[in-house]
Amino acid sequence: MSALDPKTDKRCRDSFSRQKAMATIGASVLSVAPGEVELVMPFSDKLTQQHGFIHAGIITMLVDTACGFAALSLMPEDAAVLTTEFKVNLLSPAKGERFIAHGKVVRPGKKLMVCLGEVFAEEGGKRKQVALMTASMMVMDTSTGLRD
Amino acid sequence: MSALDPKTDKRCRDSFSRQKAMATIGASVLSVAPGEVELVMPFSDKLTQQHGFIHAGIITMLVDTACGFAALSLMPEDAAVLTTEFKVNLLSPAKGERFIAHGKVVRPGKKLMVCLGEVFAEEGGKRKQVALMTASMMVMDTSTGLRD
Amino acid sequence: MSALDPKTDKRCRDSFSRQKAMATIGASVLSVAPGEVELVMPFSDKLTQQHGFIHAGIITMLVDTACGFAALSLMPEDAAVLTTEFKVNLLSPAKGERFIAHGKVVRPGKKLMVCLGEVFAEEGGKRKQVALMTASMMVMDTSTGLRD
Amino acid sequence: MSALDPKTDKRCRDSFSRQKAMATIGASVLSVAPGEVELVMPFSDKLTQQHGFIHAGIITMLVDTACGFAALSLMPEDAAVLTTEFKVNLLSPAKGERFIAHGKVVRPGKKLMVCLGEVFAEEGGKRKQVALMTASMMVMDTSTGLRD
Repeated sequence: MSALDPKTDKRCRDSFSRQKAMATIGASVLSVAPGEVELVMPFSDKLTQQHGFIHAGIITMLVDTACGFAALSLMPEDAAVLTTEFKVNLLSPAKGERFIAHGKVVRPGKKLMVCLGEVFAEEGGKRKQVALMTASMMVMDTSTGLRD
Repeated sequence: MSALDPKTDKRCRDSFSRQKAMATIGASVLSVAPGEVELVMPFSDKLTQQHGFIHAGIITMLVDTACGFAALSLMPEDAAVLTTEFKVNLLSPAKGERFIAHGKVVRPGKKLMVCLGEVFAEEGGKRKQVALMTASMMVMDTSTGLRD
Repeated sequence: MSALDPKTDKRCRDSFSRQKAMATIGASVLSVAPGEVELVMPFSDKLTQQHGFIHAGIITMLVDTACGFAALSLMPEDAAVLTTEFKVNLLSPAKGERFIAHGKVVRPGKKLMVCLGEVFAEEGGKRKQVALMTASMMVMDTSTGLRD
Repeated sequence: MSALDPKTDKRCRDSFSRQKAMATIGASVLSVAPGEVELVMPFSDKLTQQHGFIHAGIITMLVDTACGFAALSLMPEDAAVLTTEFKVNLLSPAKGERFIAHGKVVRPGKKLMVCLGEVFAEEGGKRKQVALMTASMMVMDTSTGLRD
């Protein structure tokens, strides 16, 4: 991963910090590179489903955001990003101390960017993959009123 | 929708109430019927993405839960439910006063149940569909230690 | 389903008849309406997987085409249709005398149309659903060189 | 990729050769390794959609089969494989001289195996990725009557 230019790096981090949902789940940015973003989230009891694992929707939210910012990092300045679809395969129950989501652009189109996302649970220094996402991110014209 | 027997109805609602993530997002049960569940969630600023819409991950969490409990309502007593995969198409930005998720079993298999989910945004008495989900729910043996 | 205007009806059927893959699998058009298309395909031994069922890829091809033409029926004249993604849940093994695919637009956007597709196997006058698809169809500018 | 033991190698290739749909599209096996399978298919005019590209359903069939045999290569002898769902993102139009599908198991569960599939178009010695698949393969008990 090469470094992102400082302006685009700032743009991605600023847009991330405007996501109130990210503060709610305690997520933060680990790394930003061209077409690749890593986020991290600690375990929290208030984000669990009925068996005590992190809810699949929370895992999805984390990796969707990683994929969205990976896409944004490759978009022109006058564009905003919007997810149009994703699919998630849940590989193992989401239990662990913290969760790392990695999003990467695999097809940087002009209108649509296709991303691959992975989520890993960390516990006692060990990593286990818990989710696999594929997603489509639309490159939105800022004439729509959306900005990033 | 016919009524669910009181025991299964209680089982689904109890399992729902053990999902701390549902309390965190303010979701509650609207209706439970055999193979069909409706949940509702009010708009909350703390669940938004960078453009002020409800985050796609939250919408996913709501409708995944509706689908999961729709599947659980058709499972034998000694089974627990676990999502193995879902895909969501985001049809419109999730803005509105409240959000209704409807989950329905379309294929009640012995090992896997396939569900169709829809989420609607309500504003000023009008409904607009914002998301479409297809999901697979695994019928887990309670010998795994999971209970519902 | 209201009727499609004759010009659009002809456009969809002409585009269908240019799909050589449809002739190869013996598929034909059952009905075309605004945003809804039905195709039919007889069972053929040469389209089977190792257990003697119709291969999931063939079922997918049939319903992807139904969804694509459903989307095309709602597009302006200077647009062509291209599938960007789909997901298929296989509900039952594809065995039967013939297979009916039904594609319907659920979200007719200007850039992307989201479709829901279903495939039914018919045997001895009975119908059983074998597949469920959700798909995104891109509205392509004909300046790309694509025509429909 | 380490080599597959001869018995399992033969089992996968035999099961492949029973797929009449693979003969119909001219596909053959390039390589088989534990949890990884590569198939190849030449371009054929009879497999095209209306713009002259290989139909997305054919591309799907090829990579679904690669994923299915990748899963089968890790299954016990008394098991058969059945696809329960897949999602495909179409990254570029499928044009080229031949198409290589690569299927890999990313999560080898006892009941479900999750696979990642990729399809590349080759033209003039160059490769371009045209599709990305995620799929769930069910490990079927042969008491169901299915054999592989």
